[in-house]
Amino acid sequence: MLKLHFAPKSRAIRAAWMLEEMGLAYELVSYALGDPQMRSPAFRAIHPMGRVPVLEDGDVRIMESGAILEYLISRYGGSAFRPDVDSPDFPAYLQWMHYAEGMLMPPVNSYMVETFFLPPERQSEVHAKRAKKLLGHMLVAVEAGLEDRAYLAGEFTAADIMTGSAVMSARTIGVEMSELPQLTAYIDRLSQRPAYIKAAAL
Amino acid sequence: MLKLHFAPKSRAIRAAWMLEEMGLAYELVSYALGDPQMRSPAFRAIHPMGRVPVLEDGDVRIMESGAILEYLISRYGGSAFRPDVDSPDFPAYLQWMHYAEGMLMPPVNSYMVETFFLPPERQSEVHAKRAKKLLGHMLVAVEAGLEDRAYLAGEFTAADIMTGSAVMSARTIGVEMSELPQLTAYIDRLSQRPAYIKAAAL
Repeated sequence: MLKLHFAPKSRAIRAAWMLEEMGLAYELVSYALGDPQMRSPAFRAIHPMGRVPVLEDGDVRIMESGAILEYLISRYGGSAFRPDVDSPDFPAYLQWMHYAEGMLMPPVNSYMVETFFLPPERQSEVHAKRAKKLLGHMLVAVEAGLEDRAYLAGEFTAADIMTGSAVMSARTIGVEMSELPQLTAYIDRLSQRPAYIKAAAL
Repeated sequence: MLKLHFAPKSRAIRAAWMLEEMGLAYELVSYALGDPQMRSPAFRAIHPMGRVPVLEDGDVRIMESGAILEYLISRYGGSAFRPDVDSPDFPAYLQWMHYAEGMLMPPVNSYMVETFFLPPERQSEVHAKRAKKLLGHMLVAVEAGLEDRAYLAGEFTAADIMTGSAVMSARTIGVEMSELPQLTAYIDRLSQRPAYIKAAAL
């Protein structure tokens, strides 16, 4: 059976969300973020940096949420969640699959490091503010991508899990979205999906 | 004709490298990093944050190097650069396609911000050192991935362009690699590929 190494409020939600959208059975191995077990040799053998998500499927072990989503789609019949190569939505799908980690998550991470992970005396308000401002700029492209559509690549796809969850993270850390009405509606739309609700409650 | 918006020493090298590996004809639109033209309204219409690479293909316009590589493979007959879905190398391919931006490039970027992009009085040596240390840890997983193979997913694939170029960036910023012999050999191997040499000279 598929086995997902998971922690709430981490990128592992993306993998659980995809599994739920596809209706696949899986075993959940859940950690709390910062759990010392994630630093143990046993878990380091599964992910060398002690991170989640990791998906195990028999002999296959795979890191990186984007890779896990593509793997599930490709090996478990998830073609409804990825446009065909010949579809006009295919380029947008690829772009938003990669935009999440390429553009949006680095400033989200910087913000978290500067406000949460570092001890208070080493946190920098300047760095945190800069990260949030940068993220605001990055989100304008997503807003534009949603101007004439409910989802980023036509119907709901894995790209909405990747970039959508990054947009949700941006809102969680308090990025101002009053001038991004498409994004606000998009978050509402995603938040109401039963598969998302299940994954977020894990 | 395919049109690539490019700047030397940027992630755009990945797209040029792929185009060269595939032997595709393309028009190059080259900028210098920091070129004010990249902040112009004309270029902002092409990439909202004024970044490269962007690939244009008729009406298609696509950002993000990983997305561009997948696009070229899928639409221009590049199956030699991606294992088949049923191949035992397919999961590793996906993982290393995403590991580059998910794990390696964020600390490379942080290092560049703290040592180069910020004005000297706002640079932080503490942050720069932390980024480099983190990157060293991230590279250990790549070293392990190369233990029994010359490339990350069997034969040379697009995953070597993504993660390989990130490993090269790590060396460029001075990450200590004396205890990572596989990575050192890997960089040599990649650097000798004619397509890489062409892309790096653009």
